[in-house]
Amino acid sequence: MKVEVITIGDEILIGQIVDTNSAWLGSILNAQGLKIVQITSISDTSEAIVNAVNSAFDRADLVLMTGGLGPTNDDVTKKTLAEMFQVNLVLNQDVLTHIQNLFSKKGYLMKPIHEQQALVPENCKILFNEFGTAPGMLFEIGNKILVSMPGVPYEMKSIVSNQLIPFLKEKFTFPTILHKTILTQGWGESIIAEKIKPIEDDLPQFIKLAYLPSVGAVRLRLTGVGDEFEINQIHDFSIKIKEVLDEIVFGEDEETLAGNIGKLLVAKSRTISIAESCTGGNIAKLFTENPGSSAYFKGGIVSYANEVKVDVLGASLCTIENFGAVSEETVKEMVLGVKKIMNTDYAIATSGIAGPGGGTIEKPVGTVWVAVSGPNFIVAKKFFFPEARDRFITRVSLTALMMMYKEIKK
Amino acid sequence: MKVEVITIGDEILIGQIVDTNSAWLGSILNAQGLKIVQITSISDTSEAIVNAVNSAFDRADLVLMTGGLGPTNDDVTKKTLAEMFQVNLVLNQDVLTHIQNLFSKKGYLMKPIHEQQALVPENCKILFNEFGTAPGMLFEIGNKILVSMPGVPYEMKSIVSNQLIPFLKEKFTFPTILHKTILTQGWGESIIAEKIKPIEDDLPQFIKLAYLPSVGAVRLRLTGVGDEFEINQIHDFSIKIKEVLDEIVFGEDEETLAGNIGKLLVAKSRTISIAESCTGGNIAKLFTENPGSSAYFKGGIVSYANEVKVDVLGASLCTIENFGAVSEETVKEMVLGVKKIMNTDYAIATSGIAGPGGGTIEKPVGTVWVAVSGPNFIVAKKFFFPEARDRFITRVSLTALMMMYKEIKK
Repeated sequence: MKVEVITIGDEILIGQIVDTNSAWLGSILNAQGLKIVQITSISDTSEAIVNAVNSAFDRADLVLMTGGLGPTNDDVTKKTLAEMFQVNLVLNQDVLTHIQNLFSKKGYLMKPIHEQQALVPENCKILFNEFGTAPGMLFEIGNKILVSMPGVPYEMKSIVSNQLIPFLKEKFTFPTILHKTILTQGWGESIIAEKIKPIEDDLPQFIKLAYLPSVGAVRLRLTGVGDEFEINQIHDFSIKIKEVLDEIVFGEDEETLAGNIGKLLVAKSRTISIAESCTGGNIAKLFTENPGSSAYFKGGIVSYANEVKVDVLGASLCTIENFGAVSEETVKEMVLGVKKIMNTDYAIATSGIAGPGGGTIEKPVGTVWVAVSGPNFIVAKKFFFPEARDRFITRVSLTALMMMYKEIKK
Repeated sequence: MKVEVITIGDEILIGQIVDTNSAWLGSILNAQGLKIVQITSISDTSEAIVNAVNSAFDRADLVLMTGGLGPTNDDVTKKTLAEMFQVNLVLNQDVLTHIQNLFSKKGYLMKPIHEQQALVPENCKILFNEFGTAPGMLFEIGNKILVSMPGVPYEMKSIVSNQLIPFLKEKFTFPTILHKTILTQGWGESIIAEKIKPIEDDLPQFIKLAYLPSVGAVRLRLTGVGDEFEINQIHDFSIKIKEVLDEIVFGEDEETLAGNIGKLLVAKSRTISIAESCTGGNIAKLFTENPGSSAYFKGGIVSYANEVKVDVLGASLCTIENFGAVSEETVKEMVLGVKKIMNTDYAIATSGIAGPGGGTIEKPVGTVWVAVSGPNFIVAKKFFFPEARDRFITRVSLTALMMMYKEIKK
């Protein structure tokens, strides 16, 4: 089954927003074994919509549209589709009741304009929109299917996951598909490719490997399409890859590095704290964005000023003056200081020069010291990441977390 | 002049990467007064490329393509274009020299496959690619223009900014265009729209207003197209809007809230520190992601555990036990504590329930107290933001920064 996506809205064309809906659709459909052959972003005019739908129908069996379903006059998608299919707009009582409930829950006043959201082309099947007023609408036109959904990401995602995919699965036979994603931190794509080349060369036709790099991390996604017996080989291949990449693997699928450190800490009933200089709170943020992190994350100190390193963390002024704030000696005092002050079992500390200013010949922008400490160890390492400030902060944060992960896992 | 964008690559269609190139092109061309009428993402096959280019030429005068110009065999764009225009690929000496220089600078070995990057269709004009091996290629076909560029964002951006736009400006007359963006924090889109309705109704035809909402903030962008005298009225309108929205405006154009607090602090030679519970390091991160923040940001304490609020921040255990960690009393002790410990002039503190767990009937998930303090004031406010954890963290952070901004600006 060939799929196309049409996103409607001037805000995409003038770059006000980035079209993340299409990428999400691409990834979720791909996980089901469906292939998107084209994504088209158009203006919200009837002419553009009619042209885009017609030419998508020339190529694809399933066309997914997002956007253009708001209550105001500039949203013309519903009217255009009704005209295209030469049907009337009719009031759907279930949708109306749902809209009324949404408004009464929020305590907002419902206006006539909102009631119009319950008018739908009479030939459509409703895909219930739990979170919003514009329902998803599914049209079966000959052997083609057209689906129109709101552009608000969480509304659209809920409709696709809870309504559309179950509908499609009931109607069509889907290939069996299996994914396994291996998460790594520490090496670039090309080094990883070199290391696992023998395994990659061995992959059967029905298993594909994709490299998904981001700053400081590379995800390796194995995708198998075929019969159940065959694609179960994915597990064997993922084990082989994890063996070769053992020193950089920290998890699988939707896991995160900070989250997995958290799981290890919870299992051991241990706690952690952070002293951050150049990462400026980002490592604390990576821990605390996980629900339940208060079980193991006690706190952090962002010691940007040297004064704070001394007065709050208890690093020695003498050490900072002799070796500098960005030094093995200082970062070790920081990590021991925060561990003691916060009374935790483990601690991480970072001190580096994020730039663009602050570099010297001896310690250029990009220089950073990271220390990790636990009940019976302290390790400090120097790194050099000469890149833009935001990328530097991300890479140092992940590098520091990976150092900690390896120690706790031992 | 109507513009279309074609992005080539399976990684977009399967959702491995989000197509940010199109949004960037939309925004940069819009700033020049050019309108993108359609964005099409396709697979890197000859058939898809030929079809996409032909149908884009039906609608647009200028077609910009990105992607599919790598040295490997799976990149077919260049070959496809040469076939389409029935021309040969010829070696361009300037491009070859540039590629050789790139390789020798990085100390990499240049292979025959890289030399092929200097082969270009003989009917194209080269748009120099400072940062990569694949040159931009511009084709004038009748009165239409087709441009093929690499998909690597920073290579593409440099080609567009430094080569393509100057070329187009020389060849065509562009409208004069002016943008002014007003940054606000605190009210939703619909309240803002109500407040500035009289001003919006007054806007002349040649000035458009766009609402650009994100979590916790709304940007208002005025765009004027016309003659210079006319569009200078944008300044008057932006002043009128800022007057009406005075209590929520924090800046203009590319400024940030934390950055603007920083500017005020630098001007006064003052410093700031942060005590964060529910925002978990995010406010510190928002300050420290700005280059030069060490001039005014001394540090922060992420006091996730109550123990840390008492032992490190010096809040009283008695207060926490009597009133709870999420209370006016505790957040005030936190803000005074961090200000004292970090020895700063100003401080911000947050304490709330980010969820999904941890809520009670009296203090449900989404409850948060924020305190700000300065040389002679302390203000604490309670908010209720019942939403997903990541959105809660962002909204509380911006709300707290806005409280601080208003106090410092007084």
